[in-house]
Amino acid sequence: VKADHIEWTAGHTLRMLDQRRLPNEEVWVEARTYGDVADAIRSMVVRGAPLIGIAAAFGLAMAAQAGDELGHADEVLRATRPTAVNLGWALDRMLGVARSGASPERLLEEAERIASEDAAAAKRMSELGADLLPDSGGVLTHCNAGALAMLEYGSAVGVIRAAHEHGKQINVLVDETRPFLQGARLTAWELQKLGIPMTLITDSMAGHFMSRGAVQAVVTGADRIAANGDTANKIGTYSLAVLAKENGIPFYIAAPTSTLDLSCSDGAHIPIEERSVEEVVSIGGVRIAPEGVHAAHPAFDVTPARYIAAIITEAGIARPPFQGALAQLIQSVSLSLLERE
Amino acid sequence: VKADHIEWTAGHTLRMLDQRRLPNEEVWVEARTYGDVADAIRSMVVRGAPLIGIAAAFGLAMAAQAGDELGHADEVLRATRPTAVNLGWALDRMLGVARSGASPERLLEEAERIASEDAAAAKRMSELGADLLPDSGGVLTHCNAGALAMLEYGSAVGVIRAAHEHGKQINVLVDETRPFLQGARLTAWELQKLGIPMTLITDSMAGHFMSRGAVQAVVTGADRIAANGDTANKIGTYSLAVLAKENGIPFYIAAPTSTLDLSCSDGAHIPIEERSVEEVVSIGGVRIAPEGVHAAHPAFDVTPARYIAAIITEAGIARPPFQGALAQLIQSVSLSLLERE
Repeated sequence: VKADHIEWTAGHTLRMLDQRRLPNEEVWVEARTYGDVADAIRSMVVRGAPLIGIAAAFGLAMAAQAGDELGHADEVLRATRPTAVNLGWALDRMLGVARSGASPERLLEEAERIASEDAAAAKRMSELGADLLPDSGGVLTHCNAGALAMLEYGSAVGVIRAAHEHGKQINVLVDETRPFLQGARLTAWELQKLGIPMTLITDSMAGHFMSRGAVQAVVTGADRIAANGDTANKIGTYSLAVLAKENGIPFYIAAPTSTLDLSCSDGAHIPIEERSVEEVVSIGGVRIAPEGVHAAHPAFDVTPARYIAAIITEAGIARPPFQGALAQLIQSVSLSLLERE
Repeated sequence: VKADHIEWTAGHTLRMLDQRRLPNEEVWVEARTYGDVADAIRSMVVRGAPLIGIAAAFGLAMAAQAGDELGHADEVLRATRPTAVNLGWALDRMLGVARSGASPERLLEEAERIASEDAAAAKRMSELGADLLPDSGGVLTHCNAGALAMLEYGSAVGVIRAAHEHGKQINVLVDETRPFLQGARLTAWELQKLGIPMTLITDSMAGHFMSRGAVQAVVTGADRIAANGDTANKIGTYSLAVLAKENGIPFYIAAPTSTLDLSCSDGAHIPIEERSVEEVVSIGGVRIAPEGVHAAHPAFDVTPARYIAAIITEAGIARPPFQGALAQLIQSVSLSLLERE
């Protein structure tokens, strides 16, 4: 893989753009062991459900190259972040190849294959989703589901980008996405580079702009989609979905099929990661609350399927009722993989 | 007036605790002219609808003392912030006294009377509202409608404080309230001092905690309440009201009757202040978004009356339909003022 934010080098190193330091600094972190990769995922050097799947796949390939015990490496990588299912999906796929007695080179090839499939999925879902957006108007997004969270176009930002490239006159409302500010730091940075008109807002302003008619569609990424369509995504997504419904605005999820977890019946079974409250009581090292206050930091929430108008994947667009539609998408992906073998 | 955060000194100076610098520093700003008071209101040294009414009243009294043209002083003070109606309400009342040919001393007395009525209103509405809160559970609040925004108990925080003092087992969920962070900086600070259990959350987490059953009531202050009950309050309040309705949670407004604007038929006629986008693209001087991004900063939003379960005032609790109930409250206040004369 060789992208603007993640690169596998001949020197057997996974280089990752440190997303914690964007947009102020562009610093790369180099991982030479699977432990380094695990650290990078845990500390959010890399983030975004598809991207941490790719990083973990390379981590497992690095473990194989180094002769490390793969079961242990898998355990360490898998434990880094609990909500995004792409992590487990990528590791399962790597372990499947490893169990067939594959060489370290073959595992590396599999990691590269995951990355290139991800890039293709991003482009494909962006094209499919672009048709759902209005010819002109405001589109709101939350967190960063752009190139930085994946490869190529990304998911939700990819849908917006493709619509923009098709000549749709879209102004993007970007939620800043407290506490980690992925919207303000990453999505705003990406859109600015792409020259797509945007307005940065605080998360608390989204409802106001919806009620004033400034939003014609909402599109976000996802970290895990259950069999019934319930979707875990960055904290704040659920609120947007409720507000969109109340204002008659379609709410879309864009995610590759690797984000589908059909073994999970509904959202109640999706584990919600709790992250450090330091990210809540301070911003960029500046303390914003009195010392000693109690705070909470659920990093994700679950949007029930009934608020979701459509789930955009590289294999097609699922509409409610999602149970059957998502199962069909997964089946079509499995079939096309079988055909390719 | 002599409170922990605003004080009229014999030296003819209005001293105000600089709320922009809390909780990290306790610095006082001294206003010696009505222009100084206007600056303090505009720059949010003092904020909170009732408190800026009090400050403006003292500002007009100071203008009278200095022999300044009152019509001009009124204009300058009135233009500082457009949304909170308590500002205009206090100035109207002061001008009414001035027009009757009152001395500067009498104007100062009127400003003191506004302050002491405000303090009494805070205590009274806190007691009335406390009964609406559950005997135990989570109560969510937004921005700061506490002592710092008013006098004595404040409004929304006052309701919570009174319930706590009555032995109700309440855990307060405090929205940090981006962009100005009144929740994280001011409400958390007040609750911590009062020893009331609290959890600080980002605005984007409120919906999540509602959906998980952690919130039994929401109570906020208000900046202007229209005749039909539509209520302007800090940006983000509308979203909370929608989320509360969707989750079957009562949403309450607590505000003195000076916040009622019966001349305003509904929320569409309430002016929404736009503040500097600097507050959105940076936090405490730390830049959080790329240079040059476009941002927006509506400082308030309007919550339609249909989302509001009750409006708590010092004159009683109004329930829907609000049109008649609010008119009755205003009438009872006018009658009791007449009786007192």
